[in-house]
Amino acid sequence: MDNKHVNLLIFSGEYDKALAALILANGARESGMSVTMFFAFWGLMLLRDPAKMSQADKSVYEKMFSVVTPQGADQLPLSRMNMGGIGKYMLLEMMEDSHTPQLSDFLQGARKKGVSFYACKLSLEVMGLKAEELLPEVEVLEVKDYLQDAVNADLELFI
Amino acid sequence: MDNKHVNLLIFSGEYDKALAALILANGARESGMSVTMFFAFWGLMLLRDPAKMSQADKSVYEKMFSVVTPQGADQLPLSRMNMGGIGKYMLLEMMEDSHTPQLSDFLQGARKKGVSFYACKLSLEVMGLKAEELLPEVEVLEVKDYLQDAVNADLELFI
Amino acid sequence: MDNKHVNLLIFSGEYDKALAALILANGARESGMSVTMFFAFWGLMLLRDPAKMSQADKSVYEKMFSVVTPQGADQLPLSRMNMGGIGKYMLLEMMEDSHTPQLSDFLQGARKKGVSFYACKLSLEVMGLKAEELLPEVEVLEVKDYLQDAVNADLELFI
Repeated sequence: MDNKHVNLLIFSGEYDKALAALILANGARESGMSVTMFFAFWGLMLLRDPAKMSQADKSVYEKMFSVVTPQGADQLPLSRMNMGGIGKYMLLEMMEDSHTPQLSDFLQGARKKGVSFYACKLSLEVMGLKAEELLPEVEVLEVKDYLQDAVNADLELFI
Repeated sequence: MDNKHVNLLIFSGEYDKALAALILANGARESGMSVTMFFAFWGLMLLRDPAKMSQADKSVYEKMFSVVTPQGADQLPLSRMNMGGIGKYMLLEMMEDSHTPQLSDFLQGARKKGVSFYACKLSLEVMGLKAEELLPEVEVLEVKDYLQDAVNADLELFI
Repeated sequence: MDNKHVNLLIFSGEYDKALAALILANGARESGMSVTMFFAFWGLMLLRDPAKMSQADKSVYEKMFSVVTPQGADQLPLSRMNMGGIGKYMLLEMMEDSHTPQLSDFLQGARKKGVSFYACKLSLEVMGLKAEELLPEVEVLEVKDYLQDAVNADLELFI
């Protein structure tokens, strides 16, 4: 499987979907496949570095948006049954019971295993986020660059 | 990239997901790829022509459904943080601040650039929508026609 | 189209998305394609056999979770406009009016037509579900097995 390439477009900013995406990314790397993850819109929330939030050069809306949206992987809500955090708490407890690593562990795993992380340039502009606020290895790409990678991949998913 | 083909299945009827889909479609056309968009279920809301709504030959449920669902691209809600329209208003303001065109602009762009628009026959029947209520260039297709196009494409996404 | 292969990853546990997935699976089989469906996270709810629920060997959280989540295909909510069940009732009525089979019919169809059903091992563990609680033909697979199938398919979707 060494020459297979996986391309994941991460649009959603939800804990469970991000978990699925990162489990796939880790599994693909462990199977010898190359993996690119392209983060757009809400998916960018996963890449935010909580220690690097900045309000400099932001409009009023961008500042508000920056505060009400999740600040990094651990703060993402569930896509279903979040119930103000109760459902997420329950899921995290069940993950711990079954000795499943948490989202941030899979994120660290993907970073160590050489998954390529890209952020969508247009989405960053719209949401008022700056590359400096993201994890250091994230590279900013245009939509056309994503497309070029995706049409040549063996597996492409919109998550 | 002239011989690459992109196939997008648009299931969701949400402003941000439709935006992502149309940005991809426009980018692919600008890169010389051919693009087909197949709209099913809630995705059909994006194709409704607000000037062509009709209640003729509709059952009570179809009439109710037709009124409570979004009537065209501009009325679609956000998939997250819509907050009764406040979140969407905020996002639209941020898009304007960063000089990003709106959803209807990307839709017009895709129509001008020769993206092929298809509506799912079964979805139209279930939702009580008629081809005459959609944008004029939309062609009605069966699921099997979608599949035939998709299995031969270089990039297929479910959005 | 005899040698084409379709691979669907079903993450969502919603009536309308499951309907779309099973319509695609049935259509692909009728077109002579082979189809594998890999169910993860909320998608597992679709495979639960209401007659085989068991609380044995489950933790407190697993028991709670097992009760508050949908027990089989018919109980899945809509992804949009569910409105406590009113929207789903309306959709089901509209489906009946247009003589469209229901979700459970498409599920039976897919089972008879030879669609391969797989459940994600990790998801089962996290959610505290056991293989015995699922439809009998469901086979449990690892993420890496899903990936191997998906990178060799002609159409792969994340639903």
